[in-house]
Amino acid sequence: MQLRKNKVNFSKINHIFLSHLHGDHIFGLMGLISTFGLLGRRSALHIHAHEDLKGLFEPHLNYFCSDLPYQIVFHNLTFDGPKIIYEDKKVTVESFPLSHRVPTCGFLFKEKPKQPNVRKEAIHKYQLQVREIVALKEGHPFIGEDGKMVPEEELIIPAPRPASYAFCSDTRYLRRIIPVIEGVDLLYHEATFGHELKDLAKSTSHTTAKQAATIARDANVGKLLLGHFSSRYRDLKPLEEEAKAVFEKTVMVKDNDVFTIER
Amino acid sequence: MQLRKNKVNFSKINHIFLSHLHGDHIFGLMGLISTFGLLGRRSALHIHAHEDLKGLFEPHLNYFCSDLPYQIVFHNLTFDGPKIIYEDKKVTVESFPLSHRVPTCGFLFKEKPKQPNVRKEAIHKYQLQVREIVALKEGHPFIGEDGKMVPEEELIIPAPRPASYAFCSDTRYLRRIIPVIEGVDLLYHEATFGHELKDLAKSTSHTTAKQAATIARDANVGKLLLGHFSSRYRDLKPLEEEAKAVFEKTVMVKDNDVFTIER
Repeated sequence: MQLRKNKVNFSKINHIFLSHLHGDHIFGLMGLISTFGLLGRRSALHIHAHEDLKGLFEPHLNYFCSDLPYQIVFHNLTFDGPKIIYEDKKVTVESFPLSHRVPTCGFLFKEKPKQPNVRKEAIHKYQLQVREIVALKEGHPFIGEDGKMVPEEELIIPAPRPASYAFCSDTRYLRRIIPVIEGVDLLYHEATFGHELKDLAKSTSHTTAKQAATIARDANVGKLLLGHFSSRYRDLKPLEEEAKAVFEKTVMVKDNDVFTIER
Repeated sequence: MQLRKNKVNFSKINHIFLSHLHGDHIFGLMGLISTFGLLGRRSALHIHAHEDLKGLFEPHLNYFCSDLPYQIVFHNLTFDGPKIIYEDKKVTVESFPLSHRVPTCGFLFKEKPKQPNVRKEAIHKYQLQVREIVALKEGHPFIGEDGKMVPEEELIIPAPRPASYAFCSDTRYLRRIIPVIEGVDLLYHEATFGHELKDLAKSTSHTTAKQAATIARDANVGKLLLGHFSSRYRDLKPLEEEAKAVFEKTVMVKDNDVFTIER
């Protein structure tokens, strides 16, 4: 329902990454799978999750979705260290272990570096051949007829810096993720509690807003998105304030918010 | 989420009646059960459904809701004829078989008749004793000191007529339900298709808007609520018009609509 409300093109969703098998993170999945089927999906849907999911879901799939017109492919996450679990021409997705009450992964989504564009004026001026354009895109220098190297800035428009996004939920305050998520443009991190409940956060393996902000600051991320707030907080202002005191570029997220990485 | 949006008091929900085990009628159940648990529910929740539900849900309950602070009681529906499946001081709930692609029940919710109130003026005028008041409420006549029967309208305010509601979804056009739902105040009936698709309705065991209106008219119901429309209909006006041509007191329902039975 949320995807539909946001007019997301369902056919563009081919991989689903599930951090852990707690109900609030997976109860919507059967409805999603079923709706995709009703809408006539044909291409396989890949679900990356703890290995238990397959055994739990297959009886329901067989009973409720016996005529599903597409294939579900389950991929088992591992929890012993960072691992690239998906890769295509444009992006990689890496899972890395978090620490919660059940086996849990965070996910790091990274664009691959793109090649620069060669300036049209330069192509014209130096009568560049395809071979020379390819070489420029690959980072080789270009030597002009006068035997001198033409400055790079005259020849190419650098590619935008590859974007990156890390998703960390649910987890206790876990400083060992810092090198993994170092420098991402966007970090989504859970902040179930305010720091006044740091003991409860610890005992339930959750993070406080202040702790999440500390991770963001020390990992030098571009922007911190906080979510997964306990329903006890009607007013999130105190959580926002305690996070911003540590890391100013913090945003409290709501359902259906959309964030664009600016480069 | 819909219950919360409508500010429904969750603790007042003790029985859930599931017509049949198709995904669009049950995928929300696990989330509901889990949320009730997170909110600290203590009283048992009774689920009336096809017997397969228990076997399907128990592995998920054990995995995702192992610390549920209340009991789930599964009650198996039967599909061979009308049956009272719930009764308390105020209401009865009766299941009755529908005809769909899997075993399906409709549900008839009936208030029990209430006793009339005895008029305060009459209590004063005739110095009525408790025993006489109880007798009046039970329908006995009252003989005044002059030996004449006092007219009923001078003594009592009749109780409001018991309200009734029938829920019929999903089902093919099924005229044998008419005597079961005869005269209900509100009838919810599915109308998946317009009558231009009556063949598709038949082959998928659904009902057209016109057919549902025919059921409502012939069962002499107070008001017909139509729902469960195929997502192909962006504009429901044609379905509304074909239904109203047969049964004027038809309402097209949307999520979160509330209907009060007027008496």
